[in-house]
Amino acid sequence: MAKYVIGVDYGTDSARAIVVDTFNGDVLANAVKEYPRWIRGLYCNPQANQFRQHPLDYLEVLEATVTEALSKCDPGVAENVVGIGFDTTGSTPAFVDRAGTPLALLPGFEEDPDAMFILWKDHTAIAEAEEINKLCSEPGCDYIKYEGGAYSAEWMWAKAAHVLRNNPRIAENAWSIVECCEWLPAVLTGVRSSDAVVRSRCAMGHKAMWHADWGGLPPVEFISRIDPRLEVIRKHLPDTCETADKPVGYLCHEWAQRLGLSENVIVAGGAYDCHMGAVGAGIRPHTLVRVIGTSTCDILVAPYEEIGSRCVKDICGQVDGSVIPGMIGLEAGQSSFGDVYAMFRKILEFPVRQILPKVLKDKVTPEEISTICQLVIPSLAEEAEKMEAGESGMLSTDWINGRRSPASNPLVKGTVTGFTLGTTAPAVYRSLVEATAFGTKAISDCLESQGMRIDEITGIGGIPHKSPLVMQIMADVLGKPIKVCRTIQACALGAAMFAATAAGIYGKVEDASEAMSSGYSNTFYPIPGNTVRYQEAYKEYLKLGKFTESELYFG
Amino acid sequence: MAKYVIGVDYGTDSARAIVVDTFNGDVLANAVKEYPRWIRGLYCNPQANQFRQHPLDYLEVLEATVTEALSKCDPGVAENVVGIGFDTTGSTPAFVDRAGTPLALLPGFEEDPDAMFILWKDHTAIAEAEEINKLCSEPGCDYIKYEGGAYSAEWMWAKAAHVLRNNPRIAENAWSIVECCEWLPAVLTGVRSSDAVVRSRCAMGHKAMWHADWGGLPPVEFISRIDPRLEVIRKHLPDTCETADKPVGYLCHEWAQRLGLSENVIVAGGAYDCHMGAVGAGIRPHTLVRVIGTSTCDILVAPYEEIGSRCVKDICGQVDGSVIPGMIGLEAGQSSFGDVYAMFRKILEFPVRQILPKVLKDKVTPEEISTICQLVIPSLAEEAEKMEAGESGMLSTDWINGRRSPASNPLVKGTVTGFTLGTTAPAVYRSLVEATAFGTKAISDCLESQGMRIDEITGIGGIPHKSPLVMQIMADVLGKPIKVCRTIQACALGAAMFAATAAGIYGKVEDASEAMSSGYSNTFYPIPGNTVRYQEAYKEYLKLGKFTESELYFG
Repeated sequence: MAKYVIGVDYGTDSARAIVVDTFNGDVLANAVKEYPRWIRGLYCNPQANQFRQHPLDYLEVLEATVTEALSKCDPGVAENVVGIGFDTTGSTPAFVDRAGTPLALLPGFEEDPDAMFILWKDHTAIAEAEEINKLCSEPGCDYIKYEGGAYSAEWMWAKAAHVLRNNPRIAENAWSIVECCEWLPAVLTGVRSSDAVVRSRCAMGHKAMWHADWGGLPPVEFISRIDPRLEVIRKHLPDTCETADKPVGYLCHEWAQRLGLSENVIVAGGAYDCHMGAVGAGIRPHTLVRVIGTSTCDILVAPYEEIGSRCVKDICGQVDGSVIPGMIGLEAGQSSFGDVYAMFRKILEFPVRQILPKVLKDKVTPEEISTICQLVIPSLAEEAEKMEAGESGMLSTDWINGRRSPASNPLVKGTVTGFTLGTTAPAVYRSLVEATAFGTKAISDCLESQGMRIDEITGIGGIPHKSPLVMQIMADVLGKPIKVCRTIQACALGAAMFAATAAGIYGKVEDASEAMSSGYSNTFYPIPGNTVRYQEAYKEYLKLGKFTESELYFG
Repeated sequence: MAKYVIGVDYGTDSARAIVVDTFNGDVLANAVKEYPRWIRGLYCNPQANQFRQHPLDYLEVLEATVTEALSKCDPGVAENVVGIGFDTTGSTPAFVDRAGTPLALLPGFEEDPDAMFILWKDHTAIAEAEEINKLCSEPGCDYIKYEGGAYSAEWMWAKAAHVLRNNPRIAENAWSIVECCEWLPAVLTGVRSSDAVVRSRCAMGHKAMWHADWGGLPPVEFISRIDPRLEVIRKHLPDTCETADKPVGYLCHEWAQRLGLSENVIVAGGAYDCHMGAVGAGIRPHTLVRVIGTSTCDILVAPYEEIGSRCVKDICGQVDGSVIPGMIGLEAGQSSFGDVYAMFRKILEFPVRQILPKVLKDKVTPEEISTICQLVIPSLAEEAEKMEAGESGMLSTDWINGRRSPASNPLVKGTVTGFTLGTTAPAVYRSLVEATAFGTKAISDCLESQGMRIDEITGIGGIPHKSPLVMQIMADVLGKPIKVCRTIQACALGAAMFAATAAGIYGKVEDASEAMSSGYSNTFYPIPGNTVRYQEAYKEYLKLGKFTESELYFG
């Protein structure tokens, strides 16, 4: 009798649910839904880099995607679903009350952005992250050495401190804090107490300073020094956290009903999208798996004996079991990747969104305006593809949302240079694509220079499938082939592999990954001449980056 | 009996003719026409910075604008026109045959861009300009010291060498070379010989190395070293050149007929637009007059006793009589100003011009697309005006067409830095506006640091009238008030003042300028708080400029 699992992938703009055959990884059905409030721009302030997501967005799309995906399957599939697993963005935390409920679900907090999930790319806590880094530089306080040596404004403690300082109502009502990838399994298993939420090894280890060396999270004395208001939060967090292959529990009655599944379904632990995506893409030692979307997350795994006591610097962290239980997971990443192109697209949309409706009035529909905007990047890519490497004479840096790796710096901004009278939009776009590839090379160089072997690169996420120009330029810049994972649902597939493992179909995640892999659809091979040309341009990129980072102050 | 003159201003995109009362400068009528071939993009290659204009464009718009302007006047005006004068862009030279006819008007050359006028902003001769600068650095060869110490790719000898080297048919057929401002008076006075073309003091002194110190143009031995093919051209150029207040001759029969004027009309000498515009704007010693359009031209005049034997460095030149006969005219300028905004506009037009027609098909007319594009800059300005000085956190340099002053460098390119996730099109636009104002301050600082007094600034050209945001930011950055000349036709009015002087109505140009002035319509006063903020940003601009100029090489 076939057994199925459901993997649910919570991305930045939408969630995707897939129904998967545990025997061979075949995807029977999938469904995607955008977060309804998020997509309307609610609770966000892009100018201030404030990005929040309402918990109802998550619950509504969960029900919608899972039921839609199941409805596309043959009858009988739903009753043979044995597990469900989640991956989410992160660090994406929300404050909860004693019952483990995000404050935005409580009366009076429904519209307060500080009561919602603080999305990974929210950069409102830059000052708090700096303070944490200062504290950690004191003797005996280096709780960030396994997180790349720099705590980020994107991470849990900085975000928590920022909100508690600036919003007294939240400070009065917050009991604890929960990451999105921890909250969803808790909801589905009917958890009614903050204490009972199973904490994620991936989230705690990479973003909350958890490490076995100091027996868990940093002590309450340290956390209180970041801000005294954090004391109560730290006290209500446990020192244990689990890898995602462990079952969290069975599906509760309410959610079994809402999803159309049985109460025998095992709910697996949650983890971040890129970590599960790496598993979905068949990660093995010496393979760098890159999840390439609005930002990138770059994942390596290393057996204990290979990494030893080494502490890899200038990346986002190394955590025992964050990717594959029993190995060290290393994470690095670019804070913005597809977002770089999206920013340029938004700039180009100005005349379409602001002027066109005034001139054409009701001759144009909102749908047509959307269609034009959606064609911006494909049209740019079509023109940019006709250019040679370096032809535009332009050079850019990719840090429009600070820099994550190597050497985290939340303050750096992006630059485009080389403008002439004849500069065209496709030339700017191509330069931005080259810049994101240079950012990739900077990460790869950082890992290799510290002795981490990278034999091959695998790309997953939206961009590897839809942007051949981006992938070709990346291969050219790196001088290495890049395999593209066949599935466009690697993260959801990874979540399904963890669900299959938690449900006992496989003894360990590597076996699930082996059996359920989708294989590879395509390989981009570097064009040697371009690699040579880009070597020079890359040196210029490093110079431009160093100058704009260290010598300019404005704004 | 009232006497009238006609001033014709040849701009980059169009020509304008005005009919003016010599008594008080009242403009009776005016007419503007775009160059028909130019406006269709013919003979140009913006990616290669090649910009050419067909001589027929000039002749057709001359007839069209003068006859249209006259047709708007009362009967009897035409017969009381006593003079006509010209200002043009420059250096805008064309090769001519022995009869003084531009080669593009000869059979077989009609479509050859090298046989046409090479527009001021054509940058195809960068290599030749570098060679000239190298030659001039040899002992006894400093023929560019009064031209700012750097010969530009925009100037006559570099352009001439470039074309002769690359186009053997032109090299075989070229007898001499003529600037647009010299050719138009020659055409109107019926000149049939290259030898009889009256050379312009303004053009020869600022762009062709003419100076009294060495008795005219550089000797043939020197010019031949630039390229042997230039020998014949130099031999056919005289060592004398005239200020524009001198009559060139009477209107010939053909053109009297075509324009509807009498053969008693005096044709004045030609000069460059900014130099005549400065006179039209009432220039006096210690007033910096800025012609602000696609680029800027900044003009100061200094009495002989004030400048003495001083050679002002890092500007575009100082020439006896190039502005007001009997004084030294000093010229500086920004290679791109409005062109910086136009480049950004062209980038933003991409979805409107490339995608919108495919989506809306025949629901949208070409006129509506043009309307949308024409609204881009006003819409950007409307949004950018709501921002505070420095609010965007962006910083740009303005050199998208090389740099003219201070310290000419044709190779520098433009930079925009400070991109974040939330960067908007209006923020980029504001940063570009600030960059063009910083470029203005760099010129003003350069002149003042060499002892040239600047008591006030006068703005003329299109931008001072239509872009209050640009002017306010410029006043803020300079920390000085900027008066806006009332007329939008200062260049044409200046040409009319020279025509009135040449025709004998006034004894000298200053008297014509005094009597025929339009006055000032507006003054922009700096906002002190903004001036303080921009001081800091200006320092960063200098740093960014220095870095991108000296440390980056790519493309």
